[in-house]
Order: sequence, then C-alpha cells, then structure tokens
Amino acid sequence: MLDVCVIGASGYTGAQLVELLLGHSEVQLNRVFVSAASADAGKPIGTLHGRLASSRLTLEALDEASLAMLADTMDIIFLATPHEASHQWMDQLSGGKARVLDLSGAFRLQDIQAFEQYYGFAHTSPEALSKTVYGLAEWYPQKISKANVVAVPGCYPTASLCALKPLTAQNLLDPAHRPVINAVSGVSGAGRKAALANSFCEVSLQSYGVLGHRHTPEIEAYCGVPVIFTPHLGNFKRGILATITVKLANGVGAAMLQQAYQQAYQDHPLVRLRNSWPKLDDVVHTPFVDLHFKADPESGYAVISAAIDNVMKGAASQAIQCLNLMIGQPAAKGLIPL
Amino acid sequence: MLDVCVIGASGYTGAQLVELLLGHSEVQLNRVFVSAASADAGKPIGTLHGRLASSRLTLEALDEASLAMLADTMDIIFLATPHEASHQWMDQLSGGKARVLDLSGAFRLQDIQAFEQYYGFAHTSPEALSKTVYGLAEWYPQKISKANVVAVPGCYPTASLCALKPLTAQNLLDPAHRPVINAVSGVSGAGRKAALANSFCEVSLQSYGVLGHRHTPEIEAYCGVPVIFTPHLGNFKRGILATITVKLANGVGAAMLQQAYQQAYQDHPLVRLRNSWPKLDDVVHTPFVDLHFKADPESGYAVISAAIDNVMKGAASQAIQCLNLMIGQPAAKGLIPL
Amino acid sequence: MLDVCVIGASGYTGAQLVELLLGHSEVQLNRVFVSAASADAGKPIGTLHGRLASSRLTLEALDEASLAMLADTMDIIFLATPHEASHQWMDQLSGGKARVLDLSGAFRLQDIQAFEQYYGFAHTSPEALSKTVYGLAEWYPQKISKANVVAVPGCYPTASLCALKPLTAQNLLDPAHRPVINAVSGVSGAGRKAALANSFCEVSLQSYGVLGHRHTPEIEAYCGVPVIFTPHLGNFKRGILATITVKLANGVGAAMLQQAYQQAYQDHPLVRLRNSWPKLDDVVHTPFVDLHFKADPESGYAVISAAIDNVMKGAASQAIQCLNLMIGQPAAKGLIPL
Amino acid sequence: MLDVCVIGASGYTGAQLVELLLGHSEVQLNRVFVSAASADAGKPIGTLHGRLASSRLTLEALDEASLAMLADTMDIIFLATPHEASHQWMDQLSGGKARVLDLSGAFRLQDIQAFEQYYGFAHTSPEALSKTVYGLAEWYPQKISKANVVAVPGCYPTASLCALKPLTAQNLLDPAHRPVINAVSGVSGAGRKAALANSFCEVSLQSYGVLGHRHTPEIEAYCGVPVIFTPHLGNFKRGILATITVKLANGVGAAMLQQAYQQAYQDHPLVRLRNSWPKLDDVVHTPFVDLHFKADPESGYAVISAAIDNVMKGAASQAIQCLNLMIGQPAAKGLIPL
Repeated sequence: MLDVCVIGASGYTGAQLVELLLGHSEVQLNRVFVSAASADAGKPIGTLHGRLASSRLTLEALDEASLAMLADTMDIIFLATPHEASHQWMDQLSGGKARVLDLSGAFRLQDIQAFEQYYGFAHTSPEALSKTVYGLAEWYPQKISKANVVAVPGCYPTASLCALKPLTAQNLLDPAHRPVINAVSGVSGAGRKAALANSFCEVSLQSYGVLGHRHTPEIEAYCGVPVIFTPHLGNFKRGILATITVKLANGVGAAMLQQAYQQAYQDHPLVRLRNSWPKLDDVVHTPFVDLHFKADPESGYAVISAAIDNVMKGAASQAIQCLNLMIGQPAAKGLIPL
Repeated sequence: MLDVCVIGASGYTGAQLVELLLGHSEVQLNRVFVSAASADAGKPIGTLHGRLASSRLTLEALDEASLAMLADTMDIIFLATPHEASHQWMDQLSGGKARVLDLSGAFRLQDIQAFEQYYGFAHTSPEALSKTVYGLAEWYPQKISKANVVAVPGCYPTASLCALKPLTAQNLLDPAHRPVINAVSGVSGAGRKAALANSFCEVSLQSYGVLGHRHTPEIEAYCGVPVIFTPHLGNFKRGILATITVKLANGVGAAMLQQAYQQAYQDHPLVRLRNSWPKLDDVVHTPFVDLHFKADPESGYAVISAAIDNVMKGAASQAIQCLNLMIGQPAAKGLIPL
Repeated sequence: MLDVCVIGASGYTGAQLVELLLGHSEVQLNRVFVSAASADAGKPIGTLHGRLASSRLTLEALDEASLAMLADTMDIIFLATPHEASHQWMDQLSGGKARVLDLSGAFRLQDIQAFEQYYGFAHTSPEALSKTVYGLAEWYPQKISKANVVAVPGCYPTASLCALKPLTAQNLLDPAHRPVINAVSGVSGAGRKAALANSFCEVSLQSYGVLGHRHTPEIEAYCGVPVIFTPHLGNFKRGILATITVKLANGVGAAMLQQAYQQAYQDHPLVRLRNSWPKLDDVVHTPFVDLHFKADPESGYAVISAAIDNVMKGAASQAIQCLNLMIGQPAAKGLIPL
Repeated sequence: MLDVCVIGASGYTGAQLVELLLGHSEVQLNRVFVSAASADAGKPIGTLHGRLASSRLTLEALDEASLAMLADTMDIIFLATPHEASHQWMDQLSGGKARVLDLSGAFRLQDIQAFEQYYGFAHTSPEALSKTVYGLAEWYPQKISKANVVAVPGCYPTASLCALKPLTAQNLLDPAHRPVINAVSGVSGAGRKAALANSFCEVSLQSYGVLGHRHTPEIEAYCGVPVIFTPHLGNFKRGILATITVKLANGVGAAMLQQAYQQAYQDHPLVRLRNSWPKLDDVVHTPFVDLHFKADPESGYAVISAAIDNVMKGAASQAIQCLNLMIGQPAAKGLIPL
C-alpha cells in the first residue's frame, strides 16, 4: 500500500480525489490538507462534502513543517490547490521521496511567457516546470510513468485534446482553418466558493473568456495547431460537452477519421467511440471520454463532439489514471471494474 | 400619473418591481435607489439585471437629503430593502406626503417580542409599526386602500395564508391538530448575493429553518392558529409550492371546503381554484396563486396545495396589488389584461 | 379591434401566442383551434396550459367548414401547426379576406428542392409559397407590412440571422471560411408531445442534426452565405444561445463590426446590443434578441453571441411583431411598454 | 462466483442494477432480459443506457423456455419489471434453484385486498406472496438472509420507513396524530418511457397521488401506524427527500429520539445520522440514507428528514444489500469501500 495525501481537499476536485482514493485498492489515504489560512482547517471533510459524511478524515492546516514531512514520507502527493499555491509549494514537495500530481494550471504550460500572459503573474517555479510531464493519460503514458511531477490537464483541454489529437497527430486538418472549439462546462469548473456570478439565480447559459481563455494556449501547445476556443457556463453542476468544427485536409474523409480514432483509442477503455452524439449524463460521475464525429464530404468540414465529467476525467479521475501509470497499474484501476 | 420610486432596486424583488412599474399605466418611475454604501450605486440597472437592459434608470445612492425629499415629493415609495434598513428609514419616509410599501419583514409582525425573537434584533420603529397594515391583498383590501404604511407579506406566508385562511376564517379545522405546512422555495428567496450556500453547486433540495423559521409567527398571526412550518430550498430560481396537511373539524367535508374557497376567492381573479394539483411553472413569472385541495372522509384529513411565484405574488406583484388598492384601481391592474 | 384566431393552440408556441394576443390592445381573440383529429379538441385551453387557467377559450376542432369561414371572417389567422398541416390548409385560409401568419417551416424556404431534401416531403402549396414573405421582423418590415402570407422564421434562424446579417449584408466576412454556428436550444423547441427523447430523465446536453439540420438552408438562404450549423439540446425549457465564429475579411476590425450592428439595429428596440455576453435568463419570457461580439485582431476571427427565447422571438413574439407591421402599429406593440 | 441475471434491464432500475452487479466481486452477470414484446430486445444495453456503453451485454427477449432455464441455472434472479410481469413470472422463477429479488410492487403488500385496491388488479400469485420477505435491509436482515423471494421496498417507503421505524418501534409517537410524510421524488421514479407528463417541459414541482398513493399502505404496513403521505414530482432526475412531521408521545424529547436513531443504525454504515439537514446531492448516485431530526419541546412536534437516491437505496442498491445478506456477505459489499 502506497501512502498518498491530498492537499486542497476542501474544493470539488479535492473531494472527488478523496472519494476515488478511498476506494483504490493500492493506496492508503490518511491525511488531507487545506491551506493554513483556510477557515476549513480542523473540520471533518464530511461537513464540507456531504458525500464523504462517513469519512473520519479531518482537514489539516498545511504548515511549513508539514511540507517537508510530506515530501519525505509520502509516495504520492496530490495538489488540488490554486495555481499560486502550487507554485509556492512545488519545489519543497517535489524535492524528496514523494512524486507530485498537480491539478492546478501552474505547470501545464512549458512556455512561461504564455503562462504569464494568460495567468496574470510570473511563473515562480521554472525548475520544477522543466521536469514536469503533461498528464494527458491516453497520450503520454510512458512519460507519465516515469515522472516526478505531473501537471494534470485542464478540463477543457482534456475534452478538446482527446477529440483533436487523433486528427492533428496524423495531419488530417486543413492548416488554413483553425479548429473552432465550443464547449459548455458545469458550474463546478468555477470551484467551490461564494461568488455572485456562481450563485444559483445568476447562472444561465452564457459564453465567457471569449478569444482569451487560459485553456487556449494549453490546447494549442499539446495539439500543435492554433484554435478558436469559446467556453460557456451551463446550468448544470458537472460535465463538459465540447463541439469541435474542423476543415479537413484535401482528400480526407470519414473513413480516415474513423481509422484515426480507432487507432488512437483501441487500447484505452476510458475513451469510448460512441455511435451517437455524446450526452453529458452518460459520462457524469464517470471517468469516461465519449467521442463521436461526422464528416461532410461536400463541404469538407467535420464536427467532433466530446463529453467528459470535468471533475472526473477533467481533473480527479485523470489524476488517478496518472497515479496508476506511475505505480505500474492499469490506467483504469480503481475507476472501472477490470 | 403618480410618482413612485423603488429603494433597494439592486435585488431580485426590487428589479421585478421596476419591471412591473415600468409597464403600469398609472404611475411613472423615474428614480431607483440603493443604499449609499452599496457598490452598485451609480450603475445602470441593466448592468445588474439583464432583463432591464433597455432601461435608462441608474441606481442612485440614497443619502439623508434624498430621504426627506422623497417623503415630500413621491406619491408612493417602495422599500425592497433589508429589514434593518426599513426600520431605519421608515419614520422619515412615512412622515410626509408619500405612502410607503415595505417589502421587508420589518413591519409584518405587530408583536414586537416575537419580532425580536425571530429576527434577532429589537424593533426600532414601533410608532410606524402601529399604523402599518398587513398587505395580504385579497384579505385586507379596505385597510390597505387607506393605509399610509403597508407591510407586504412574506413569500411563504402569502402562499400559506391564501391556502389556510378560507378554512381558519370559518373554523373548519380541528384545533387539536396543527396544520403542517411543507413548502419549497426557489433560490431567489435568499436574495441576490454571493454566498456559498446559494452557489449553484451547493444548492440541492433540503429543508432549513426547521421549527424556527421567522415566517412561522407571521403565518400564525394572520391565520390565528399555531402551525408547524417547514421550509425547503429547491433547485429552481423562482416559485413556492406549499403543501398543507390539516385535520378537519368534525363534520367538515369536501363540499364545505369547496364552498369556503369559492366564497373567499370568487371576486379575486389572481387566485385561481384549479382542478388539478398546482404546478410551479403555471405561476412562475405570473401574479397568480394556484390552489387545489382534497379531503379524505375516512381519516378526516385534507391536503391543500398552493403555488406562487415568490418574487411576484410573494413580493413584487402583491405590492402592485396593494398600490392599486391604495390608488383606487382594480387590484390586478398592470398584472393581467383587464 | 381586429379579429384574430390561432390554429394549433395546443402546442407551446400556440399557447404563447394566445397569451400575447389576449394582452394585445388592437386585437380580439375569441377562437382557438386544434386539428379535428386531436384528442385535445373540446378542452378548455387552461387544462393543457396552466398559465392560461383563467381563460375561457376552448380548443375547437378545425373542420372544413371552419376553414372557409375563418378565411372570410378573420383579419389575421395564426398557424402554429405542423408543416404538413400548414401546407394543407394554406391555400384555403389565404384565399379570402384573412392574412395568414404561419409559424411552421412550411413556407420558409423558397427553394422547393431544398425544402423536399430537408423536410422529407414535397411542397404541396407552391402558389401560396410564391407570395409568402419571410417574417424576420427587423430585416423585412416593408415586405411584411404588405404581405398576405408571412412565414415566421425558425428559432435557430432568428438567432443566427440577427447575429450574422449585419456582417453579411456589408460583406465583412472572409468568403473562404464558413461561419460556424453552435446553438443550444431549450426542450420546448421539440414541441409538446410524449417522446422518450424529450422525457425529463433522457434530456442532457447533446448535439443533434449535425451537418444536416433543416434550419441550415433557411439560415443560408437569408444571409446569403453557406454556414456550418450545429444545434444542441440543452437541459432547460426555453431559450436559444447561438455562438457564431467567423473569419473577418481582410481589414475588418472591431470598429467596423460595432458600426454594422449599431446601424442595423439602432431603430429596433427588441434587439439589444449588450456590453457583456448574452445570458439566456435575460431574454427568457421576453421578446428580445441580446447580441454581443468580440473580434481578435491578431487572428482575424470574431465571435458573436445571440440569445433569444425560442418560443417568443423564435416564434410567437416575432409573429406579433409581424402582426403589428401588417396593421400599421409599432413592431413592439403589446410586447414591451411603449 | 454466483450466477445472476437481471430481467427488465431496459429501465432505469434495471440499468443501475447491471452497473452495480458488474462491479460486484462475488457475482457474475452474463445475461440481461427484457419482455419478449419489447422493441428493445436484441439491442446492446449501451444503446439504451449510455453509461453502460462499454458493456457487451445484449438485451435478450425473455420467453417461456428461458424462464424455466433461469430458474434452474441461476443463483439469483433480479426482477426489475412491471408489477404484472412479476406476478406472471414469479411462480416459475422461484420454483427451482434460483432465489428471486423482485423490485416491483407486486409482492410488497401481504394484504391482498389492499393490493387490489391500490394497484387496481387482483393478486395472481398469493402462494409466492406467502413466502416473500420484505427487503428493508437494515430492519429485516435475518429474514432476508434466508428468503427465497424478497420484495425490495418501494422508494418512498424506504425513505419513510428508515425515518419512522426507530420511533414507531419504540412507541415514541402520539397515536392520536398521524405522521405527515411529504416527499419529493426525481422523475426517474416514473420509469423510462415516453409520456407527456414526464416530458421535460411539463415537469415542474407538483404534488400527485394525494391521499391515495399506493406507497401509503406499504409504509403503514411496515411501520404499524396510519400516515398521511403526500408525494411530489420534483424537477430533478434522481433522489427522494422525505420530510416527516410527527407528534411525540407525552414525555418524549430530543434525547430519546437521538437514542432511538443511534440504537437503530449504529451497526448500519449505509444509514448516516447527519448533523445537518440532508441534501439530495449528498446521496444521489450513492447507497446511503441520510437522516436528521429536530424536536420542539414546546409543541411536542418533531420533524425528521430523510434523503436517498430513489434508483439506488430506493431500488437497486437496496437489492444489492439483500443479495449480500442472502449470500453471507456484509450488506454494503460492492456499494462502499469496506
């Protein structure tokens, strides 16, 4: 049994990680942390997250002494923290025995100029960044298995890249046209906090971050082409549906797309090539990516749709996939019956 | 044309009042206010409430000078403010020409001991309270028509009293059994504010304020019998559905109930005696109360159901009914085609 | 007072029409119809549509005799019927005194080949089609004012065309790139009927009709450029949010877009150029179109967002706009305070 | 490994059963059935239930030959069928080696007069009924462990009985007052079917089956007191929240209630005595019952709230609890980490 801990367990992603880790046969989770400044320190985790009401875990305040101790005693540390906190703590946490899985955006962009532009502050941990592996589980399993630091992908990039990479990896797109990614996310993507914009009565389907969202450079970096990405807030708690419109390269048709997807995912049980258009409820509370596409031979355009649970495949369950790869287990261990 | 203004127009009730007043043929609304301390002062109302995006009204900061001026120049002042603010401003606002309609809870309970117990602070305006009329429009039209100060009823009491009063007014209930009121409200009832409990991901059907909600003494005061009132938060924006279980007095049956309801509401077009169980969507965004009931001759129990829009009949449209009564218009003027 | 009637009043669009017409000061609505084959014939309209519970209107069965009588006695007839029924009845209904507003898809496409391809059956009323005017109210007011038959636009086309036409009318788009329209509609767009796909538990955000929806040729016909249109079903009852990605022609920037939109809509109070991204709830139960856009000078792409209520501006309230134009009233009469 | 099968796997309960059984370490599920008349026969289960898209199970048509074969070869048979079908097939299915868990209402009432009154048809399988055990897992574990036929309780009764039985079992209630049960259920409780009443646009919070719902006699039979039960349809897919108002017997207070609940559930990990009012989302997609209560010493009334997932604890996961008891495993096996 490996020793793991979760830092940032007061949020939705942290709580989901705790739920998954408590059900994982290869690890033991005995400690969960929040920032020392958090009003939640000292509370049983079940008082924040009712689904965990039976758990005996209490949110501990993370202080300097704990950081050093965790780095030396834990096998795996999960960081479900704000970007800034991940920056601040990573050097210490990744400097010992422990390997670190970071679920924030702090280490996803290798380009620190782009990071500063999109996140609004300078990268303070470039050394840790240089050894970080991007944790898109189906695409970088070898690198993840050996990594000391893994940046678990963002929710929108996970959905977008799972849909786009089979095509960009094989140069099936017309380079004169940017893929147009429209995605709708559940409100949990905005985190667990009091904010007027996230209050029940204010939420209503709406785009945001148009032509400037920070997941744009992340998508572009890992699929290799520039995109137009428009995120939307939807009136539901969990899930992302991404609808992607692409212009195919000359001569590319439905059969080549089918082949590209099958080849990419035939050995990956958590990506499901569906025979109908993905529906959010089919994936919510699951670790799956559901994909479907259609090509229009006349116009040369194609539409691809991807559905995930943003808190699962877009965060916590993808982190578990990375964990499994790092400890030599099947990627889907603890996520689906094997 | 009468001059009216709305104080507290940043909230959901205030915005709904503005929408109704802008469409009312007998009044002109040129000024809307927020507390001087509010960050919303100076903003066009449409930036807070998108439905009013075409309006040229700007939220003015309410200062001392304005209070005196409004009392002297306005015909009717609507207060859609916190209880404390209504206390603070009422003496001044009701001391001149203007008549005041208060939508807070500040003046609904004549019993100031009960007020202090349920609201947590002492009543600071007992003189204004002594001249206040309770604005349950279908039940106190005469008094409302002459009032200088009207306390517009709370949302739960409106639904509960419209359902119960026809029975209590005619002594149709068994006094040994308290009516059991279960009601579910939309989240707008909690007001427009940033709060974790009202954030989209946290809202889920749940009871609250059990055996101690401040609307309990208000219901009891105006129907004359003690009740067990259990409110719930529902996963919708607007509406209240109240389900009320009563034990009928000996010898009371369905026919007597039917007669009691018909007699109470035959001249009141905004109360609709339905032939099926009221459904929230039938009343949301409308000024109606929908009622239906069923009696069980064997056990002597009956169930009554009432549906309203909490922001309309539970606040703003009932205030408009009171306005109409005060200015000698049909109560439903500006609310339904007449 | 003009005499009007609604044929097809059992559906959501028909009921909304009834609600609007009952509140319209220039018309009287005394008769509402359903197909003679409908099980709803003979029922008070309020038993189907609870919002109309106070109405005394009863759904009459439409027989042959009624058709002739209505054509001769009504001033305006609203058809909120299936496409096939509109075909069947149009010749007779439009052959007399009455002018007809058809809210189905039967007369929206002048190209009868395209009609047959997308609707799956041949057009049976080409003569009426030849005199039909497309009822996009802000764009064709002159023609509508004189028309005998108006085809009220589809819901998706209304949102899409209001967003696109200011740009295509002034040739601001790069012709090598198709506008990409992603739109999410509430379930009312599918009509009032029992169907597993529309049952509460089955509805979940999902695309459908990809690269083949019948609103595609309608959009293309009236904006003059080919588009990629992807509709989605959303988990809400009313509303459409359309997000449109375009490639601008060389040299076109934000200022030219701003000018194009202002010029197009400055005299049209029901189209609101918002300063933030449109949100469904701002327009639901209203006759408004909310629009906002952003251009990216670097890439030359722009994103436009349009929000409407599909049952109102996407159907019933746009029909009222057409009615107003036909009878010489301001287009917004009966829809907003004037 | 025990051999199990599910009959009626096209519905929501059947699909949830399949999902749970596929993850249960002590059983193997290789066959799932639908009625031979069903249009779903022959379809892969994933085409009906997207969450099961990876499953290779295909819905087989259940014919006479299968019935006999299943009775002889299966260890456990789950019936997630209409009441009538359970009647029809039970004698044959329970006549051999197999033990049967029936999730319909067919065998829940031992009183066949009451059955006929509330279900509308006569009981056709009284012999099987006489040997049926009621599968309320926390209350009848011994009987369930030995049963050949188990009637898995209804969803409302499960929530209601878990809340009430600790009180009625110890005679803590005033017999002159009926417990008043108000419960709100998600739409999945109505089953997977096309029906106007369950269509997305028609669903809105509403009571139904008032003073006559068939779960009333089931609740009364197993808690031993008459109740007033009012069910409601809520605008959500899964979950039941039951709010129960009781009059306590003289001298009974909060401490005795606390003791009664603790004693009843201290060894039952799936019933959670919460410190705050249960919220649906804390239990949806889980096997838990969340309970909380408050007593009012002044009036002698108390309110108890219970939350469950109607498809899980209200059907499928309670059936798994019964299965575990029948095969000598901990009741929570396969439902939570043990």
